[in-house]
Amino acid sequence: MKKIILVTLLTFLFSCNTKEDKTTIDSTKISSTEVTEIKNDIERIEPPHWWTGFKNNKLQLLVKHPDISKASATISQEGITIEKITKGESINYLFIDLDISKNIKPGKFNIEFKFKNGKKLTQTYELKQRVKSAEAFEGFNSSDAIYLITPDRFANAKPENDTFKNLLETNVNRKDDYARHGGDIKGITNNLNYIDDLGFTAIWSCPLLTNDMKRGSYHGYAITDYYQVDPRFGTFTEYKELADKSNERGMKLIMDQVANHCGLEHWWMKDLPFNNWVNYQTEFENGEKTTFSNHRRTSNQDMYASESDKKGMANGWFVESMPDLNQQNPFMATYIIQNSIWWIESLGLSGIRQDTYPYPDKEFMSNWAGAIMTEYPNFSIVGEEWSYNPLLIGYWQKGAKNKDGYESNLKSTMDFAMQRKTVEAFTEKESWDKGLVKIYEGLANDFHYASPKDMFIFSDNHDMSRIFTQFDGDIANTKMALSYQLVLPRIPQIYYGTEILMNDFAKPGDHGLIRTDFPGGWQDDSINAFTGKGLTAAQKDMQTYLKKLLNFRKNSKAIHDGKTTHFAPFMGTYFLFRTLGDETVVHIINKNEKEITIDLKRYAELNLKGKTLTNIITGEKFTWNDVIVLKEKGSIILTTK
Amino acid sequence: MKKIILVTLLTFLFSCNTKEDKTTIDSTKISSTEVTEIKNDIERIEPPHWWTGFKNNKLQLLVKHPDISKASATISQEGITIEKITKGESINYLFIDLDISKNIKPGKFNIEFKFKNGKKLTQTYELKQRVKSAEAFEGFNSSDAIYLITPDRFANAKPENDTFKNLLETNVNRKDDYARHGGDIKGITNNLNYIDDLGFTAIWSCPLLTNDMKRGSYHGYAITDYYQVDPRFGTFTEYKELADKSNERGMKLIMDQVANHCGLEHWWMKDLPFNNWVNYQTEFENGEKTTFSNHRRTSNQDMYASESDKKGMANGWFVESMPDLNQQNPFMATYIIQNSIWWIESLGLSGIRQDTYPYPDKEFMSNWAGAIMTEYPNFSIVGEEWSYNPLLIGYWQKGAKNKDGYESNLKSTMDFAMQRKTVEAFTEKESWDKGLVKIYEGLANDFHYASPKDMFIFSDNHDMSRIFTQFDGDIANTKMALSYQLVLPRIPQIYYGTEILMNDFAKPGDHGLIRTDFPGGWQDDSINAFTGKGLTAAQKDMQTYLKKLLNFRKNSKAIHDGKTTHFAPFMGTYFLFRTLGDETVVHIINKNEKEITIDLKRYAELNLKGKTLTNIITGEKFTWNDVIVLKEKGSIILTTK
Repeated sequence: MKKIILVTLLTFLFSCNTKEDKTTIDSTKISSTEVTEIKNDIERIEPPHWWTGFKNNKLQLLVKHPDISKASATISQEGITIEKITKGESINYLFIDLDISKNIKPGKFNIEFKFKNGKKLTQTYELKQRVKSAEAFEGFNSSDAIYLITPDRFANAKPENDTFKNLLETNVNRKDDYARHGGDIKGITNNLNYIDDLGFTAIWSCPLLTNDMKRGSYHGYAITDYYQVDPRFGTFTEYKELADKSNERGMKLIMDQVANHCGLEHWWMKDLPFNNWVNYQTEFENGEKTTFSNHRRTSNQDMYASESDKKGMANGWFVESMPDLNQQNPFMATYIIQNSIWWIESLGLSGIRQDTYPYPDKEFMSNWAGAIMTEYPNFSIVGEEWSYNPLLIGYWQKGAKNKDGYESNLKSTMDFAMQRKTVEAFTEKESWDKGLVKIYEGLANDFHYASPKDMFIFSDNHDMSRIFTQFDGDIANTKMALSYQLVLPRIPQIYYGTEILMNDFAKPGDHGLIRTDFPGGWQDDSINAFTGKGLTAAQKDMQTYLKKLLNFRKNSKAIHDGKTTHFAPFMGTYFLFRTLGDETVVHIINKNEKEITIDLKRYAELNLKGKTLTNIITGEKFTWNDVIVLKEKGSIILTTK
Repeated sequence: MKKIILVTLLTFLFSCNTKEDKTTIDSTKISSTEVTEIKNDIERIEPPHWWTGFKNNKLQLLVKHPDISKASATISQEGITIEKITKGESINYLFIDLDISKNIKPGKFNIEFKFKNGKKLTQTYELKQRVKSAEAFEGFNSSDAIYLITPDRFANAKPENDTFKNLLETNVNRKDDYARHGGDIKGITNNLNYIDDLGFTAIWSCPLLTNDMKRGSYHGYAITDYYQVDPRFGTFTEYKELADKSNERGMKLIMDQVANHCGLEHWWMKDLPFNNWVNYQTEFENGEKTTFSNHRRTSNQDMYASESDKKGMANGWFVESMPDLNQQNPFMATYIIQNSIWWIESLGLSGIRQDTYPYPDKEFMSNWAGAIMTEYPNFSIVGEEWSYNPLLIGYWQKGAKNKDGYESNLKSTMDFAMQRKTVEAFTEKESWDKGLVKIYEGLANDFHYASPKDMFIFSDNHDMSRIFTQFDGDIANTKMALSYQLVLPRIPQIYYGTEILMNDFAKPGDHGLIRTDFPGGWQDDSINAFTGKGLTAAQKDMQTYLKKLLNFRKNSKAIHDGKTTHFAPFMGTYFLFRTLGDETVVHIINKNEKEITIDLKRYAELNLKGKTLTNIITGEKFTWNDVIVLKEKGSIILTTK
């Protein structure tokens, strides 16, 4: 075997990132004494590097280079076997299936490409050393509380990266809700202390990868390069720094990924490797109007769904600007799986939030999650199924007893059903089937779920009218909804700015407005929610309220893992208890505007009689005897600890 | 063994029934050559007789007689062993557990009761010959269409049995919606031809057992004697005649049973055998206000339900006039199970409809259905869970993959969810999440059910506003809802009078009004729906419409057992197909008032191109080619046969 003693750097393709990325991507720890000469003749190879030591020792490389499908490829490295080479239907693609010996040491090796005319290209490829054990990638769980951030709108630490001339969208305008506002990764990292202090233990940022789209690129869901951080958000190094600094604080980082679609400006859209790389590709290539998804999500489960509806759901484009990836093409399937693993391993992630979960091919999604969970047994993935139907939500969770035998391998689903019920509970007037009964009966549906405590609960998110707006500015209702969700057997997620009553009153439900700038995130902001400067008393109160609640929750094992007991709504009140060992957390909702006295006899089975409990917000003591007086509308959270 | 050669008759206890019941209950086929002298010293023994040849060869007799618990009991009959004698907590009850030898022949035997003072009582008991095989009790299924009747309001064939002086309620007044109107069993039997002719294959009558209540006894759900036909409805013989004449026509008879509660005037309420025979018995006996069910039906499934809520649900009384039976008392449990089997065997039933299914103890209900299904493997039971939540509906069906392992043994549940969706589909204006999408997505929930085609579907029933009223008098909507339900993979049930547009417009939802008299059921009725006399054109049209539909359905194997395929709503239309072999039934709903042309390309996967189909209502032929023109709002049902 040919070994050359020269180390150069594997480079990323995006110029503006190159400098910093070099530093990161380069592995200086070559365990082998023999060093390979680094050559980068090839336009694009993905994944850009890999690691040794995965359970799955197969790796499939996408190689893109002019006429590359006409070349042969060889690797002369012990322990690396080319199992198969597949030519793309575009002559500029080659897919190389590698088998990596279990015993191989990390290091670099060369792939030689030879053309019939004798031309030769060499590409150096690196297998890195994994820096932590597979088990150490600890996922989010019910002990966490997640802060969801729209990164363009949270904090702009680096105005210098707000715009790039070589990117399609140059619109940076804070007055335009659909333009870029300049928020970035560094803005999140710089404010980790704020988020940590509030009591959050995990961060989910909307996608941070390049969305080099002509417009509306700020939200991040139209990815145009799956291996690149959007330069307007920062660099790979900054993303890694965010992950590392979060982890140092014991906080978990969740990456938002999109397997269903890419952005229309994705680099491969100009030269697609196969004729079925994306769905409705022919129409796209012919410049015809494409076919959109019918969004009939029930067709994933429906035994009676027509083939036409199923195809319309899985294959149609999500929107015009987002081509639908064809995960039934095995190379696409592998591409997406490897990409997810690449980011988990590179950043040391704790979790993935998968966008538009029911839209891709569902067998693929099962394989995708299965592949990840095989490599990272303690990892967590949450899928977005925006459905209010518990049957659909439950279907997607790992361990569901589905009649059709489907196993998603997905640990966590999003509980849109309880989200809606929470809103209804507080906005509806009490009656037999309205108001608090919605959360009492909604939560009762947990009997169906494989693992309720692994489900996400939230009052709103980046796609929904903010909770304060949903409650029409009612602070008591907002607090009740939040406090209720924070004591549930769930993984709570709160959208940035909820703590300062951010809202979309001006145009309820408007996406741009839902994702308003966080005050204090921009240098010249007159109001600064990070420091409290300029906040109203109500905003400060909500910040304090959530901070107390979240910090209490952080240490309450009864909330993380305790037994749940609740009682049917009674006289406009609703009692829920979480119990573990000698810790009992009592959550009382009172919708009555006027003082009401509740006889505690009904709750005798909790054995609290005579015990002194503490109100976690006010610090007041309460002795649990015959009655409790509820002075005003709102929730009361008591603890025996 | 002592044998006496004298046959007398086992009598029923209710005087007004005695004559006819004697004829029926007496078995003249004594297979044994030895004949037992018949003695009836005992006030009450239940079941009043039994049969040989059941899989379960245990029988528990409830014996009621003054001071009977002070007596010993013996049986000197080969093959009959007293396994256990249990004294009631009331001295007037004895419970005798018998083991009946598998080899015993049908016949009579005596039970001797001896008191310490030497007093002796003898009760003759009969074990009858079963008249048909266990397998011959064929349950209802998706090939059936069920006609639901409120017997007091259908037809009064025997005005002479309208009232009885020895019964508590003497109010017979057709002008009072909550009084008795005089309808009876003979009234149903006399009109079997009408029901059969309409195309129904099964009859479910609301309960026909004695409701000797002071008021509101007409509905039948407050049973005061579980072994007696209400004399105002007729006699046991007449009930048997109804069953036999139905069976002769190939029609099935379904009995409405109530395991949850009895009527407050039930004979045992004056002298309860045990201190826990009914729930909240102490309060009842002390004359205190009793505790009602909290009706929190989710507590049956809810993992978090408090013990307090669970007890409140299962043990509380349904209403003030209906004591809650305690099925956790094993003697009560056995009483109810034996009673059900007694009626199945006596009448040759095809099915049971169990009232208020989620209210009794759920473990008992599983045992109850299990015991019946063990004896009658082809039998059918449907339980009433009035829930719009598919999770709850699905939980109760046999074969459900319940996380808690619960197995109901209940073949059939009621699909209130699809009932509501059907109404919404036609009353809501079309939009992304309103209108026809409700039935498209509602039916998609079938993926969750253990056996969708064994579920009941209905537009209304005796407890709901009539469908014509729910649709505010819209005939097209009524027809669409009915025709849709009749092509679904379900067991359809239609409430009497739907065929002549009966309604409760005057006071929507009023129970008395929902159960209006069927015109023609009373001798002096000026309108007669049985003959058509005096019906409006619209009524006649609906009668004809349903008759055509039902008679078509009766022979359509594609509807009974075919594959279902449906397509997402499109331009105010919704297409559903049922296919089996070379038979395809097409059901098209069109909500557009104006003519619309639909391109049939979308439905190509059904392979109907070029085929000629017949409109089952108009008889018109339609060749399935490029388009179909839908002229007006309404449904079209086409068949390839």
